Amino acid sequence: MRILLVGAGGRLGGAVRRALEAREHEVVGVGRSGGDLVADITDPQAVSRLYAEAGPLDAVAVAAGDAVFKPLDELTSGDVDATLRGKALSQLELVRQGARHVAPTGSFTLVSGILTEEPIVAGAAASAANGAVEAFVRAAAIELPPRRINAVSPTVAEESLPSYGPFFVGMEAVPAARVATAYVRSIEGAQTGQIYRVR
Amino acid sequence: MRILLVGAGGRLGGAVRRALEAREHEVVGVGRSGGDLVADITDPQAVSRLYAEAGPLDAVAVAAGDAVFKPLDELTSGDVDATLRGKALSQLELVRQGARHVAPTGSFTLVSGILTEEPIVAGAAASAANGAVEAFVRAAAIELPPRRINAVSPTVAEESLPSYGPFFVGMEAVPAARVATAYVRSIEGAQTGQIYRVR
Repeated sequence: MRILLVGAGGRLGGAVRRALEAREHEVVGVGRSGGDLVADITDPQAVSRLYAEAGPLDAVAVAAGDAVFKPLDELTSGDVDATLRGKALSQLELVRQGARHVAPTGSFTLVSGILTEEPIVAGAAASAANGAVEAFVRAAAIELPPRRINAVSPTVAEESLPSYGPFFVGMEAVPAARVATAYVRSIEGAQTGQIYRVR
Repeated sequence: MRILLVGAGGRLGGAVRRALEAREHEVVGVGRSGGDLVADITDPQAVSRLYAEAGPLDAVAVAAGDAVFKPLDELTSGDVDATLRGKALSQLELVRQGARHVAPTGSFTLVSGILTEEPIVAGAAASAANGAVEAFVRAAAIELPPRRINAVSPTVAEESLPSYGPFFVGMEAVPAARVATAYVRSIEGAQTGQIYRVR
């Protein structure tokens, strides 16, 4: 399959790319500042240009999402806006526009995270964004057929512990390669509306 | 208690006001165009003015939220933005700013809805907003103590069937007065981080 992978240059994205290429898929990697294609997916017009440039696609997968981590009493309204836009609205827009570009047999695989159900201090905005993504996936799944949509909801990746470890104290980390397996399941499987939790 | 009730003039808000006044609480009703206080809570500056005008508060409850209902292939990026702002960001902002205004023993009661778990056609944006609200409630509950926060998640109200009935075909409706009971439970109870589902 020809798969658009947003965030291909990140720690998770790199693992997803390797897992997909090992399955002999063609990966079109998207990054904000580099990759096969460059796009800032928080801008709906950039998403339009991205799909115009990408050509035919069998699947869209997202392994990127920006969230602001701050204690609730330090979080600004701008931080909340940026997190909802960076992790939720951006992914919703990829689906909203992508439904016209992805093959009828194709799929969308979004990314949420453990904070939907298991909050951490300083993660309230990220929790909100993840909750939006998961509820949207369940809802879009009844309107997109024959196209499918799922989300992968990882806990913190071992590879991310140097930067995010202090937020996830006492929570088990998983290798990004394990998270990547769930992307393969979503893309090659037949389910829709699922949240694949990797914990 | 002295309770700020946002959306007091709506169908659900009216039922919540009656339930709270029957419990001898003082309700300060907020509406976009009328009420004891007037505010458009989608504007963070209006939320600041609202809290400055409201005076001391023991609780904040929300019975309002604007969502766009359209089939996924007709939904615009503006519709998604407006729904996230109208139902999710607005409520998050009431909590974010309200934590400095509500009594230490006080509480926040937000509103989500059945679409978080049970999607309907044309409800994808509303589902996303509800999912954001519920995940935020779980997250804020670990940072707000001693203040509390819960959400009420109703199915469609019987009183709303004339306008929303066609979207909720085959789903049982409940009287707004039953939904209002969950607000009383949230405000007078001791739990936090809960989603009170009224179905």
